[in-house]
Amino acid sequence: MAARSDGVLFDVDGTLVDTTYLHTVAWWEALRQFDHAVPMALIHRSIGMGSDRLLDHLLGPERDRASDDRLRDAHDSLFLEYADRLTPLPHAADLLRACADRGLRVVLATSAAEHEVRALRAALDADDAVDTVTSSADAQQGKPAPDILVAALEQSGLAAERVVFVGDSVWDVAAAGRLGIPCIGLTCGGTGRAELAGAGAVEVYDDPGALLAHLADSPVLGRRHHDTEADMNVKA
Amino acid sequence: MAARSDGVLFDVDGTLVDTTYLHTVAWWEALRQFDHAVPMALIHRSIGMGSDRLLDHLLGPERDRASDDRLRDAHDSLFLEYADRLTPLPHAADLLRACADRGLRVVLATSAAEHEVRALRAALDADDAVDTVTSSADAQQGKPAPDILVAALEQSGLAAERVVFVGDSVWDVAAAGRLGIPCIGLTCGGTGRAELAGAGAVEVYDDPGALLAHLADSPVLGRRHHDTEADMNVKA
Repeated sequence: MAARSDGVLFDVDGTLVDTTYLHTVAWWEALRQFDHAVPMALIHRSIGMGSDRLLDHLLGPERDRASDDRLRDAHDSLFLEYADRLTPLPHAADLLRACADRGLRVVLATSAAEHEVRALRAALDADDAVDTVTSSADAQQGKPAPDILVAALEQSGLAAERVVFVGDSVWDVAAAGRLGIPCIGLTCGGTGRAELAGAGAVEVYDDPGALLAHLADSPVLGRRHHDTEADMNVKA
Repeated sequence: MAARSDGVLFDVDGTLVDTTYLHTVAWWEALRQFDHAVPMALIHRSIGMGSDRLLDHLLGPERDRASDDRLRDAHDSLFLEYADRLTPLPHAADLLRACADRGLRVVLATSAAEHEVRALRAALDADDAVDTVTSSADAQQGKPAPDILVAALEQSGLAAERVVFVGDSVWDVAAAGRLGIPCIGLTCGGTGRAELAGAGAVEVYDDPGALLAHLADSPVLGRRHHDTEADMNVKA
């Protein structure tokens, strides 16, 4: 437990690529087209869940599921309008390369669909630093279930005790927590510092650039210093 | 100071109508078209500022301002694509009518441009409850400067000591604070509870419906009970 890390798992949407707001508007419009008026702040705070969970969360588990597939297709079509304009978050590629340079295995633990993963990797432009990439096909259930993290560990051969996870949503923090993996939160997906810390993030930074600037002191390199600190959540 | 309220000032964008995320994406795309890559979470947390301040905040006060007007026009064009689809936040019209029914003057204190104000009022569909409406023409400087609230008070004949303000951004809270007006925060614009409370919001609710459900206990009706409460920020 007090070991050096062997690898880092990264969420991608909202953590490395600036997509959370685009997903929010795409889901809002898709839901609107199917006569569901759902406030965008609620949609926003649901992004990061698997789409199965997201619709339950927003529309209720008792709803008629007959149009779920068409709703998801509508979201995908609307989101992919932005595919050529996706923008990495500040210093996302630099952060991945800095991790790889320090001997850490870099895993993109995303449950995005295959075609979205292609667009995300193209935007990120850091395949040289990436060891393993998951996609929706690897997870039975979306976050907050830990399936995608289990798949990421299996595919990379990493042990849960020797990795950290970096994410931007409370669902990332929850999924990591179920495996006992510390989760570093980034606020660049639009979820606030207090929300991430309250969900259990061990540290919170603004974006990949801020984590990169604090890499040597962060839990990315190992959990030794940080598991015993009382004020883990308040780092800038 | 310990008096019954005479009126309520409401911010509109993100407080009564679900536009914050649309403004965020419209500004992101406008900035992108002018070769500025600005993360959407930063744009989001700047919405509510006047557009003069917003560009200073996002691009720095030392920037070349030659393209400011074209940037603003690009934002306006992109945002107005959504004009016919704007959605009121839950129970926004009910809240305005409940305030009017209790004898409170209802003022829409917005610094949106005239043509945006028309679209917002159409979406809100509660003109019968509204006493006074401002627009960008009424404010020299945008929030966090208090100009638009000063204009709202002047046009409605209300006194700062006898009103409360309802908004969704830290800039709303700051502008009200400069006039000593208590600000109730709503998280439906996507700014979190801790951020609004930290900025000085006297109470924080999820959306207009939640404020309506607590109207009798809220500071909307008067400041008497609330000015002396130590735990004003923690109400659900």
